[in-house]
Amino acid sequence: MFKMIIEPRFGDADGLGHINNTVLPAWFEQGRNPIYRLFTPDLKLEQWELTMAKMEVEFIGELQYGKEVEIRSYLLEIGNSSMTIGQEAWQDDKLGVKGKTIIVHYDFNQQKSVPIPKSIKNELEKHLIKGTKEHED
Amino acid sequence: MFKMIIEPRFGDADGLGHINNTVLPAWFEQGRNPIYRLFTPDLKLEQWELTMAKMEVEFIGELQYGKEVEIRSYLLEIGNSSMTIGQEAWQDDKLGVKGKTIIVHYDFNQQKSVPIPKSIKNELEKHLIKGTKEHED
Amino acid sequence: MFKMIIEPRFGDADGLGHINNTVLPAWFEQGRNPIYRLFTPDLKLEQWELTMAKMEVEFIGELQYGKEVEIRSYLLEIGNSSMTIGQEAWQDDKLGVKGKTIIVHYDFNQQKSVPIPKSIKNELEKHLIKGTKEHED
Amino acid sequence: MFKMIIEPRFGDADGLGHINNTVLPAWFEQGRNPIYRLFTPDLKLEQWELTMAKMEVEFIGELQYGKEVEIRSYLLEIGNSSMTIGQEAWQDDKLGVKGKTIIVHYDFNQQKSVPIPKSIKNELEKHLIKGTKEHED
Repeated sequence: MFKMIIEPRFGDADGLGHINNTVLPAWFEQGRNPIYRLFTPDLKLEQWELTMAKMEVEFIGELQYGKEVEIRSYLLEIGNSSMTIGQEAWQDDKLGVKGKTIIVHYDFNQQKSVPIPKSIKNELEKHLIKGTKEHED
Repeated sequence: MFKMIIEPRFGDADGLGHINNTVLPAWFEQGRNPIYRLFTPDLKLEQWELTMAKMEVEFIGELQYGKEVEIRSYLLEIGNSSMTIGQEAWQDDKLGVKGKTIIVHYDFNQQKSVPIPKSIKNELEKHLIKGTKEHED
Repeated sequence: MFKMIIEPRFGDADGLGHINNTVLPAWFEQGRNPIYRLFTPDLKLEQWELTMAKMEVEFIGELQYGKEVEIRSYLLEIGNSSMTIGQEAWQDDKLGVKGKTIIVHYDFNQQKSVPIPKSIKNELEKHLIKGTKEHED
Repeated sequence: MFKMIIEPRFGDADGLGHINNTVLPAWFEQGRNPIYRLFTPDLKLEQWELTMAKMEVEFIGELQYGKEVEIRSYLLEIGNSSMTIGQEAWQDDKLGVKGKTIIVHYDFNQQKSVPIPKSIKNELEKHLIKGTKEHED
């Protein structure tokens, strides 16, 4: 599991005083950096080969400005040319938001999905979480 | 169905030259303004009574900077105290992104969901779309 | 003068209930689209030749969610290879925010500024505002 | 001087492959958290008493996705009821962006500026930088 600490910005809270819903996809994007590095070690945009097919975000509790948030990221499923990444945002030891994204290994020149290389699959598998009730839905 | 035209900003495109995934939840949020107005006619934050339970965003085609995007919003389901809103982002007559959000009618003082008033339900029902293949999944 | 209507998003308001400061640079960026089009008519990123040297944003009054904002954009100064763009955000007939950006005509391959072509200068000059007390500082 | 490490998000880079201009005000906002804490130790929004009068951002070099950015924040000037905060964004030991914001100590109920308490001034003064050519303009 990959963990990243995020410090909310003043403007991340919305008019209700909670972190706005639209902020979470950006936090989760940041939290996926270590997974992206398995594909593109130095995160060079010119070598990018991933594209998002779907994201789901489930809001469980309110997150607030003024306290650190821990983003946890792990693999839920590893397919031939795509993977499902699970993510969670924790604050004060409470799970606030859960997310799931399907990312496709993609060749932007050929405009088609391509298999995930075996060596990357092996790395991804180390972060595969299954059978844990708390992490699956 | 509610329609809103959005003009992308230069910074909405990411390093791959397409509208970044994290932009869509913000566009869909903007597209829900007319639905929010059914609950809070002048959108006063002090009278707010909606909270998001879940969002799903499905990326079908690439969206680009430099061309208008039409956000279409409608009701997929109207429950007792919650509703499922369907949304679509169109550019060049092509469906680029589909979204679905579950929004709960909520009393922030009592911290609990409350029934959607009948008069608002009647309004929402006018924008309920069912049986159309293009709008359901 | 270029005018653009922007409809604030729920998340644009921050914990104080006003449009957050960090939103304005994005609104102004959107408001500069018609000026960008004078350089790159279809806003193709591959043909981009502008870069920002400086931005200034002055907050005069509070802007709110729930009401349209008008972004006004005009030229304050046109130099050999750069220009100063003035911008304003109006809501309810009140000036809320003023901005100023210095944009450089730039050759990204050669990594240096290049003169603004005469034909574009002529177009820009049509939107040059001077001598008006309300627009200068 | 306050230092904060920020890890860019994929979507922070724009179509030119560099961190978009509009991202910097948000990074600087995050970098001001430790200064905000001198006024509101737990950053509670209900006790907020600061408002921004002006921001300036100067773009010196390009910042990139894939490498950490260090945000440095310090005081340039401490007035009776306002302060000028200087900020810098460094990447790869190079100064990429400089910023300056004027923040006013403000009573939102009375809608007027109020003096900065002496005890807070004392704390702020510890982070006052003057006479250094690199930090002033």
